[in-house]
Amino acid sequence: MQRKIIRLRDASIISAASVVGKNEAEGPLGDCFDIHDASDKFGMKTWEKAESEMQRIALTTALAKASVGEREINAVFAGDLLNQCVGSAYGLLDFDIPYFGLYGACSTAAEGLTLASMLVDAGIFDVCAAVTSSHYCSAERQYRTPLEYGSQRSPLAQWTVTGAGAFLVGRHGKVKIREVLPGIVIDKGITDASNMGAAMAPAAADTIEKYFALSGADVKDFDAIVTGDLGAEGGRILCELLFAAGINVFDRYLDCGNLIYDCERQDKHSGGSGCGCSAVVLASHFCPRIERGEIKNMLIVGTGALMSPSSVQQGLAIPGVAHLLRLCAEDTED
Amino acid sequence: MQRKIIRLRDASIISAASVVGKNEAEGPLGDCFDIHDASDKFGMKTWEKAESEMQRIALTTALAKASVGEREINAVFAGDLLNQCVGSAYGLLDFDIPYFGLYGACSTAAEGLTLASMLVDAGIFDVCAAVTSSHYCSAERQYRTPLEYGSQRSPLAQWTVTGAGAFLVGRHGKVKIREVLPGIVIDKGITDASNMGAAMAPAAADTIEKYFALSGADVKDFDAIVTGDLGAEGGRILCELLFAAGINVFDRYLDCGNLIYDCERQDKHSGGSGCGCSAVVLASHFCPRIERGEIKNMLIVGTGALMSPSSVQQGLAIPGVAHLLRLCAEDTED
Repeated sequence: MQRKIIRLRDASIISAASVVGKNEAEGPLGDCFDIHDASDKFGMKTWEKAESEMQRIALTTALAKASVGEREINAVFAGDLLNQCVGSAYGLLDFDIPYFGLYGACSTAAEGLTLASMLVDAGIFDVCAAVTSSHYCSAERQYRTPLEYGSQRSPLAQWTVTGAGAFLVGRHGKVKIREVLPGIVIDKGITDASNMGAAMAPAAADTIEKYFALSGADVKDFDAIVTGDLGAEGGRILCELLFAAGINVFDRYLDCGNLIYDCERQDKHSGGSGCGCSAVVLASHFCPRIERGEIKNMLIVGTGALMSPSSVQQGLAIPGVAHLLRLCAEDTED
Repeated sequence: MQRKIIRLRDASIISAASVVGKNEAEGPLGDCFDIHDASDKFGMKTWEKAESEMQRIALTTALAKASVGEREINAVFAGDLLNQCVGSAYGLLDFDIPYFGLYGACSTAAEGLTLASMLVDAGIFDVCAAVTSSHYCSAERQYRTPLEYGSQRSPLAQWTVTGAGAFLVGRHGKVKIREVLPGIVIDKGITDASNMGAAMAPAAADTIEKYFALSGADVKDFDAIVTGDLGAEGGRILCELLFAAGINVFDRYLDCGNLIYDCERQDKHSGGSGCGCSAVVLASHFCPRIERGEIKNMLIVGTGALMSPSSVQQGLAIPGVAHLLRLCAEDTED
């Protein structure tokens, strides 16, 4: 069988950085993030350039935190939601680092970390970077309508996070990447582009079910089982799907999309989404908690909806994908 | 220094398949391709679905050629030019294979082969697939204007290949992948979206120069030095850039974009382009020539232009990237 958990002995996150906008800085995790700009513009004239600039700042910050130079990075894995992933291409242009462009929608951070950790663990690369971003204003214009139209949001809609996260993956960090399980693309026929959580939840359920079946692990082994950005609605669906499969995660389950905003106070409906969501919450909330030993063992499951405005207009359902990583504190027994 | 050639001992292309449209089947390499549909529609109602269907057929054909089942494939690396890479997401939906979405523009085949070969060589995966596609009609609608407008083409424009290529990378194939050198993103200020060859040539020159500097190899060691799809104009620029750097490739140089069409007879201006171009030419022209021993040692350099219609409209220059692989016949001495 081709589906297997890849066990890693020598890969870890040695540095992580986050850059966010106003709403994220005003949310419950606001104090965690490294850098924010209350104008959401980062000194740029277009939202797309602002998104690229966030990636540039995020990678620069991650390098500075680890006191690692650009020339020590063997490869960068990067992607975003903009058409042709230009957020990454332009944002990382200043860095002379071999470049692997990814498209994993909101699972991009997990996809990049998966590839980086496998290649570092195999000894092919010494240090890799994984970078991703999303920007509320560039995403609204591209996927829905320009902000100036003032469209009403659907009750189950999620709010694209304005943020970029950058991770350096190497050998001697405090956040160990012990296992990875890449996901398959799952399409359960969801056609509502305002309910991405429902479209992605079956993919997350598939990957998590497969993980428990293959690993023999127990939910109790984990301090947290975290998804990327299913939001309130998708998270509920996931927990129910898993419960029906005999896996009760209710008291361990968290979602980056639920954590990043106070949805009631900030009027964010079903929570955060976008490549930046899981990237900044992992980089600045979960990684430090693992470093401090508050979390010993957790699963992070990056989830992505692989649709485009054209595919939705043509009536196609929205497929999802979910990549899983097991992260551990340095001294955690296996 | 982070830029290094990755030497592989145990990775090879064990199977390759190509699916093309009418123009490609009528071109000089027409007899090489596995499957073509003269309607370019592949039984579908939209060009986007036709593109996805080509990917599905290409991977199915590659599996059949190698007598390998879907369940033996550990991962698929796939991407295309459509917004959010939906050509791949929908085209490969039927396959229950762990999915890594890529965005490398026209370098996607080389990017996928690079990742697949490193991970197979490291023993992390046994067999991986790399799949990509482009479709003239879906690309024109998205990047330029719908075909119905009948817009005039610029003299240096390239013609997006209607085609999909699929490769299986494993251990005991006849086309050995001996070395890979991933590229960095290079931006030399080209803003003409009708002259992609010029935008990508500096990236190809950078990667090829770096390869010769790091490897100590000589141009004469190679039967062919092949780029993805620089076309006539970009190819000329590349040869001149390399000549100025002391590397004379004129009598070894070939370009997939030049090979796929008889540009004069087929009115294809500067040649072919698109993710499908280098994928189908490599799969059905070069791989068989290596298998037959006609080519012992070659470089294939996949080139991509990392722009979007929005980035061009916003006046940004077009950055390029180029990933290099050295392919050898089974019995070639190192």
